[in-house]
Amino acid sequence: MSIRRGRNMLLSPGPTNIPERVLRAMQRAAIELHSDELVGLARSCLDDLKPIFRITEGETFIYAANGHGAWESALSNSLSPGDRVLVFETGVFGEAWAGMGQSLGLVPEFIPGDWRHGIDPQAVEDRLRADKNHDFKAILMVQTDTASGITSDVAAVSEAIQSTGHPALFMVDAVASLAATDLRMDEWKIDVAVGASQKALMSPPGLAFVAASQRAMEHSDKATLPRHYWDWRRRLDPEAYMWFCGTAPEHLLFALREAIDMIQEEGLENIFRRHQRLADAVRAGINVWAEAGAMELNALVPREQSNSVSAILVDERYGAPNVRDYCEKHLNTSLGGGLGRLSGKAFRIGHMGDINEHIVLGALGSVELGLEMCGIPHGKGSVTAAIATLAASADRAEPPLAAD
Amino acid sequence: MSIRRGRNMLLSPGPTNIPERVLRAMQRAAIELHSDELVGLARSCLDDLKPIFRITEGETFIYAANGHGAWESALSNSLSPGDRVLVFETGVFGEAWAGMGQSLGLVPEFIPGDWRHGIDPQAVEDRLRADKNHDFKAILMVQTDTASGITSDVAAVSEAIQSTGHPALFMVDAVASLAATDLRMDEWKIDVAVGASQKALMSPPGLAFVAASQRAMEHSDKATLPRHYWDWRRRLDPEAYMWFCGTAPEHLLFALREAIDMIQEEGLENIFRRHQRLADAVRAGINVWAEAGAMELNALVPREQSNSVSAILVDERYGAPNVRDYCEKHLNTSLGGGLGRLSGKAFRIGHMGDINEHIVLGALGSVELGLEMCGIPHGKGSVTAAIATLAASADRAEPPLAAD
Amino acid sequence: MSIRRGRNMLLSPGPTNIPERVLRAMQRAAIELHSDELVGLARSCLDDLKPIFRITEGETFIYAANGHGAWESALSNSLSPGDRVLVFETGVFGEAWAGMGQSLGLVPEFIPGDWRHGIDPQAVEDRLRADKNHDFKAILMVQTDTASGITSDVAAVSEAIQSTGHPALFMVDAVASLAATDLRMDEWKIDVAVGASQKALMSPPGLAFVAASQRAMEHSDKATLPRHYWDWRRRLDPEAYMWFCGTAPEHLLFALREAIDMIQEEGLENIFRRHQRLADAVRAGINVWAEAGAMELNALVPREQSNSVSAILVDERYGAPNVRDYCEKHLNTSLGGGLGRLSGKAFRIGHMGDINEHIVLGALGSVELGLEMCGIPHGKGSVTAAIATLAASADRAEPPLAAD
Amino acid sequence: MSIRRGRNMLLSPGPTNIPERVLRAMQRAAIELHSDELVGLARSCLDDLKPIFRITEGETFIYAANGHGAWESALSNSLSPGDRVLVFETGVFGEAWAGMGQSLGLVPEFIPGDWRHGIDPQAVEDRLRADKNHDFKAILMVQTDTASGITSDVAAVSEAIQSTGHPALFMVDAVASLAATDLRMDEWKIDVAVGASQKALMSPPGLAFVAASQRAMEHSDKATLPRHYWDWRRRLDPEAYMWFCGTAPEHLLFALREAIDMIQEEGLENIFRRHQRLADAVRAGINVWAEAGAMELNALVPREQSNSVSAILVDERYGAPNVRDYCEKHLNTSLGGGLGRLSGKAFRIGHMGDINEHIVLGALGSVELGLEMCGIPHGKGSVTAAIATLAASADRAEPPLAAD
Repeated sequence: MSIRRGRNMLLSPGPTNIPERVLRAMQRAAIELHSDELVGLARSCLDDLKPIFRITEGETFIYAANGHGAWESALSNSLSPGDRVLVFETGVFGEAWAGMGQSLGLVPEFIPGDWRHGIDPQAVEDRLRADKNHDFKAILMVQTDTASGITSDVAAVSEAIQSTGHPALFMVDAVASLAATDLRMDEWKIDVAVGASQKALMSPPGLAFVAASQRAMEHSDKATLPRHYWDWRRRLDPEAYMWFCGTAPEHLLFALREAIDMIQEEGLENIFRRHQRLADAVRAGINVWAEAGAMELNALVPREQSNSVSAILVDERYGAPNVRDYCEKHLNTSLGGGLGRLSGKAFRIGHMGDINEHIVLGALGSVELGLEMCGIPHGKGSVTAAIATLAASADRAEPPLAAD
Repeated sequence: MSIRRGRNMLLSPGPTNIPERVLRAMQRAAIELHSDELVGLARSCLDDLKPIFRITEGETFIYAANGHGAWESALSNSLSPGDRVLVFETGVFGEAWAGMGQSLGLVPEFIPGDWRHGIDPQAVEDRLRADKNHDFKAILMVQTDTASGITSDVAAVSEAIQSTGHPALFMVDAVASLAATDLRMDEWKIDVAVGASQKALMSPPGLAFVAASQRAMEHSDKATLPRHYWDWRRRLDPEAYMWFCGTAPEHLLFALREAIDMIQEEGLENIFRRHQRLADAVRAGINVWAEAGAMELNALVPREQSNSVSAILVDERYGAPNVRDYCEKHLNTSLGGGLGRLSGKAFRIGHMGDINEHIVLGALGSVELGLEMCGIPHGKGSVTAAIATLAASADRAEPPLAAD
Repeated sequence: MSIRRGRNMLLSPGPTNIPERVLRAMQRAAIELHSDELVGLARSCLDDLKPIFRITEGETFIYAANGHGAWESALSNSLSPGDRVLVFETGVFGEAWAGMGQSLGLVPEFIPGDWRHGIDPQAVEDRLRADKNHDFKAILMVQTDTASGITSDVAAVSEAIQSTGHPALFMVDAVASLAATDLRMDEWKIDVAVGASQKALMSPPGLAFVAASQRAMEHSDKATLPRHYWDWRRRLDPEAYMWFCGTAPEHLLFALREAIDMIQEEGLENIFRRHQRLADAVRAGINVWAEAGAMELNALVPREQSNSVSAILVDERYGAPNVRDYCEKHLNTSLGGGLGRLSGKAFRIGHMGDINEHIVLGALGSVELGLEMCGIPHGKGSVTAAIATLAASADRAEPPLAAD
Repeated sequence: MSIRRGRNMLLSPGPTNIPERVLRAMQRAAIELHSDELVGLARSCLDDLKPIFRITEGETFIYAANGHGAWESALSNSLSPGDRVLVFETGVFGEAWAGMGQSLGLVPEFIPGDWRHGIDPQAVEDRLRADKNHDFKAILMVQTDTASGITSDVAAVSEAIQSTGHPALFMVDAVASLAATDLRMDEWKIDVAVGASQKALMSPPGLAFVAASQRAMEHSDKATLPRHYWDWRRRLDPEAYMWFCGTAPEHLLFALREAIDMIQEEGLENIFRRHQRLADAVRAGINVWAEAGAMELNALVPREQSNSVSAILVDERYGAPNVRDYCEKHLNTSLGGGLGRLSGKAFRIGHMGDINEHIVLGALGSVELGLEMCGIPHGKGSVTAAIATLAASADRAEPPLAAD
C-alpha cells in the first residue's frame, strides 16, 4: 500500500476524533485501586454524567464494556424472563437491540421501518393503545441510528407514550447522540438511557454508560433476569471497588474525566448548536453532490437528519464502497461504510464529537476528490456550499472584522 | 497532604506497573473499526493469547470488561440454570465467584478453606468421588488468590479430577497468575481459564480474557444460561465487529498488543523464572521482618506462596493499615491492603508483571522504612537478605565480572 | 475567548504538523548519556541526514539550537573576522543572516531584492565576475524564504558561481525547504547547508542541522572566528558526548529518528512530488480568491513559488491580519502572518511536512470561510479548484476505481 | 543482550528521572510561534526562573542548547577578547569551562585542585589580592562538579571575593546544583549563573538557562566578544520571537513549564531539604560498602559532599566499570561512570531531581547486588543504614502512626 501521510481524518461515526487532551490524560501509570484519587475520579465521572443525560434523580453507571454492554445492562436490570418489549426500527440498531432481548429471554415485538424515516409517534401511540393489558414492559428506541443517520424525535415519542398512560419503561439508546443531540431524561420521562465513550463523548472506546430513572431503579428490585456484572444494585455499594464490579478501567476513566471537563467548559447547549451548524454544512455539501442524480442523503425528512452522522445513498451502478476505499487508501480519510441493508449502497460521514469547521470542510473536500477519482457523477462545490452555510450561521457576537 | 515526589511505586497486586512501551502504544488516535489494521491487531491478540494460556485447540476471547466479566463469560457460556458447581476457597475470590454463580442461577457448593493453604487435591478427589451422579457440572478454582497470596497446585487438582473420571468442566481463574505462574490448559485439561489485562499482562485495566477448550465450546452449544454480550458463539463470527460484540476497545488493544510483544520477546519460561526469583527475594525480606514476631507471611506452605503477591499478616496490636498509609502518604509507595477476612490484619506486596531487581529491593527498603516509622517491631535487613537470594540465583551464564 | 473545538489546524510555516508517531517517540524516560542506545541513535541520525542533504562526503552536525544557531555554525566555522560575504535578499532571512554575519565580525554585502522574485543567477554571476580579487569568502543564499514564499533556484545560482570560477564558499539556508524541495549538495557544489527540525522534518523545534562539504571542513581548519559550542572539529571527536558539545537533546533526537524513518519510508522523490502537488492545489485555490482583485500570491514567477509556504498579499484596505485573527480565534486554524515588509499586508499558509490532501482542502476551505467572515472580497470555490488540480495530478498507478 | 524488564532506574547524574507529568506535557502538537499561548508560556518560564536562581533584578535567558551553550552565553556576553579569567578546578567542568574561554579568545588562569576538595576561599582571596591591577575580569566557579561529586561553598567564595573588593564578574556554573542545592544570586552577589533542564529541573535535556545580574547586563554593553545566537541584548527585545533568537523550542518549554510548576508546588526550601536527606541516606549506604576497604566516597569533606551526585572511588584492582556494566546490563540500573581523571576508577550515583525514598533505597540495593555479583569487596547492609538515616530525619510533623 502506498504511504499515507498526514493525520488520518477519522470520519467514522465512532470511534471519533479524540482530543489531544483526552489522549494525553491516559499517558500515566496505573494507580492503586482504592486510592482517594481513583475513588474521587470515579465518583466525579458518575456524578457528572447526570447533567449530560439531563437526569437529576436516578443513577448513572459506567461499565468497562461497549454500547452493547449498556443495552444488556438496561434490559437485564429492569425486566424479567418472558417480558414483552416493543422495539422500533429506524436502522440497524433497533433490530440488534431486539435480538439481544431475545437472547436474554425477552419477547420483542419489532415494528419495522424503512430506514429513511424516524419513528412515527402516532404509530407508537396506536400500538400502545392497542395493548390494553399492558403486556409491553418496555419500549425501546434508538435516538440516532448510526447506520441510517436517522434521528427520531424522542420528545414526540415520549409524548405519545404519556398520552396513552401506558406504564412500560421507556428506554432510549443514545449511544450515537449523547452530547451531540439533546436528550432530556427527566423532562421526557425516559427510564433508561444508554451511551458510550467513543462517540460524541470524544473518548477511546471501552466504556459504556447507563442512566436509570428512579422508576427504573425500583423496577430493578423486582426484575428477575439473571445478572451480576451488569447488576445496578451491586454497583450502588458504597465501596468504590463495587462500582465497576471489580477493577476499574482506570485509563479510560482518566480519558473520560478529561472529556467531561471539555464538555463542561463548552456547555451542552453550545455543543448541540455546534453539531447542528456543522451537520447543516455537511448536508449542504451532500446536497451539491446529489445534484448529479447519483446519490442522495438517506434520511428523507430534514428534521430527522442526524447531527452525528450522515448516510449517503449511492446509485448502485457507481459503487459506494469505491469512494470509501479510495478515501481510505489514497486520502488517509476514513469514512463509514453502509451497514445492514445499506451494505454496498451507502457510505457514511461521521460528524460528531470533537469537530469544527476545518474538519467538516476538509472532509467534504476530501470526499469530493474521492468521488471525482472514482468516476461517480456528482455536483461540484460541496465546500463552497458548506462555507455559505457556515458563514450564514456564524456567531456574530463579536464586532465585524471587515475593514472599513 | 504533603507533596509526593518521584514516581509512585505501585506495589498493588493489580493494576501493576505498566511498561512505558505499553503506555506509549495507547498514545494515538482511534482508527476506523473495520480497518485492516484494527482487524489484524485484534486477530493477532486473540491468537497470541493461546500460547499464553498454553492452549492449542479451543478458542480465546477478549472482552471490554474486567476479571469479573471474564468469570461471567465462563459461567454463562457453559452452564445452565440450576447447574451445581463446586468451588474451593483459598481467599476472597473463590467465594466471590461462587456468589456470581448464585446470581446467575447456578447452585454453588462452596468448600471453605483457611486462607493460609491452597486447595487440597485429596479433598477435591474425595468430593468428586462422592458425587456419584455427577451432579457437579463445573469445578471452579482460583490459581492465585490475590487476597491471600496463595497459589494452589492446578496440576495436582487436575490430576485429582482426572483420577475420578468426573465429567465436570474444570475452570480456573488465572487473573492474578496468568503470565506469572505456569498454567497449562491443554496438559492439565482445563476447560475454561480466565485472565485480565492489569496483572502480569502489564496493561491498563479494562480487558478480560477467556480461553475455552474444545470441550467447553461444545458445552456452550447446550448451555442455556441467557447471554448475549458474553456469548462465545456470537463472538466467533468471521466479522471482526462481532469479536467484541460491538465496538472494540481499541486503545486497550493497542496496549495489549505491545504487552504481548514484550512477553514473546522475553519468553514465558523466562518470565516464570523471573517471577519465581524475585518473589523468593521478597519472601526472604519478609522473613527477616518476621523475626521480631509481629508479622509473618500469610501463606504457610512454601510451594503455595504466590509468585504474584505476598500477603503479610501483622499482629493486630500494630495495625497493618498504618504501614500501608504511611507508605502511601509519605513514601509514594502503594501497597495492597488486607481484603475480606484479612481486612485490617494484613498488607500486601504485589510483585508481578513488569518488575525487576531494583523494584523489589526498593519495595522492601521502602516498606522496612514504613515499618520503622510506624513503630512496628521487625527484623532489620530485609534488603540485605533479598540481595543474598538474588545473588545466589543470578544467571551466571556470562563470564564472571570480577577483576582478575 | 470562545472555546475552540477540534484539533488546531496548524498552517504555520514552522513549526508544522508533527506526526503522531514522532510525538509518541518522545514519550519515554531519558536514557543514560553514554548508553549504546543513545550513541547509536545519535550516530544514525547524523548519518541519515546525509542523504537528506544529498551529500556523500563531508560531515553533518546536529545542534540543540534553532535555525539561527545553524547559521552561526555555518559562518563561525568557515570564516574569519573581516571576511566579506555576499548575501542575496528574497525575503526576511537573507537580511537576517547578513545581520548575524555583521554581529560576528564579517563584512556582508547585501544585494537587495523585491521579495517577489528569487535570486537572479545573472546578478550573482555579474557580481562575482566583478570581484576580481576574490574578496568574497562566502556566498549566502536562502533556498526558500519563509516570509516571502519565494524559492530561488539553487542549481542555477550554483551554475552561475561555477561559471565564474569564484572560490567563495557556497552556503544555502535550507531551513524551510529541506525535505520539501530538492537540495543537492554534492551535485550543486554547496559547501554548507543548514536546516532545522520543525519544518519539513516534521519534528518539534529545538534541533538545527548543518551539512558541510569536504571543502568547507578544510576551510574550518583555517577559519579564525572564535567558536566553541558550534565548533565542527570538536564535534567530530569519536566520543559521542562531544557530538553535541555536552549533553545530547535526547527527546528531540528520539523524535528526529522517527521522522527520519518516515522520510526513508516515503522516499525523498515521493516527498518532493507530494509537496509539489499539494502546493499546486493550494495555489489553485489562492488564484480563485485572487479573482476578486483584493489579494494575490506574493511570489510572481510560478517556478519560484515555494512548495513549503505561500504568502498571500492582501489589499491593505481589507486587513490581512483580520483573516488571520478570525481563523485563529474562530476556526482553530493557525496561519502565518506577514513578516518584515509584509507585516500587516499578507498572511501565509504553510504547506510543508506531514501534510496531505485533506489538510490542504480543509485549509483552503477554512481560510475561504475566514475571508467571507472578514468581508474581504474573494473569488469563491478555492476548494473546487484545488480538487481539480489534485484529481489531475493523482497517481493513476492503481486501476481505475470507477464502476463498470 | 538479555531482556531488561521493569523501568530503567536512571541514576545518571543528568539526564535524570523525568516526572510523568513533565513527559506528558510534551505530548501535544506544536503551536503557532506568535500565539498568545506560546508567548505567555515563554514569558512565564523566563520570569519563574528568577526565584529559582534567587535573583530579583537582572535577567534570565533560556536557550535551545545544553549547559555548554549556557557557558558560552555567560562568557561571550560579558567579556572581551583577551580578558583574563580566573578558574578553579574541583572536577572536570572547571577545566572545560576554561577551555571554552580559551577557544573564545579569553585568557584563563586555571587554579588546579585535587578533585577531592572544594574551592578554598582563602586561595581565592589570596589570588585576587595579588591581582593588584584587577586584570581578572571574571571569576569562574562550578558549584557542584558532576564528575567529582564536590560542592564548593559559593557563599564563602563570594565572601572571599567581596573581602578583596575585586571588581571581576563572579560567574557560577550551577548546572548540577540548581534546584537541588541553594544558590542565592542576589545575596551572594553572583553576576552570572548557568543551569540546564536535565538535572534537578527534571526536564528533558535541550534547554540551558542563564541568569545575569544588573551589573552583568551593564558589562554586556561593553563586552566585545562576537556573539549573536547567545546575545543577551537581542533576546530582550519585546517581540517573543527574539527571546529565543528564532523559533522557540516549544516542546521543551511545555516540559519546563510543568517542571517549574512542580518546583513551585513543593517549594525550594523543601526541595533542598529533600535532596539533603536523600543524599545523606545514599552516603550512609556508601559508607557501609566502604567498610571493606575497597571503595570510598570521592569527596573527602562532608560539607562538600554533593547532594546531587556521589562519586565512589573503587580500588583499581576491582574495576569500577564492572559494577556499572553489570548494573546496566543485568539490573536495568544506569549509573554514571568515572569521568576525566576518575575514568575507570569510579562510578557515580546521581540523586537529584525527582527522587524519593524508594528510589534511593532501590538504588543502593541494586548497586549492592551489583557489587556482590562483580566480586568487589564491600560491607553489606547499605539499605539498612540508609533506612536508619531516613527514619532519623523523617518529618515528624504528623502524629506518630504507631499503634497504641
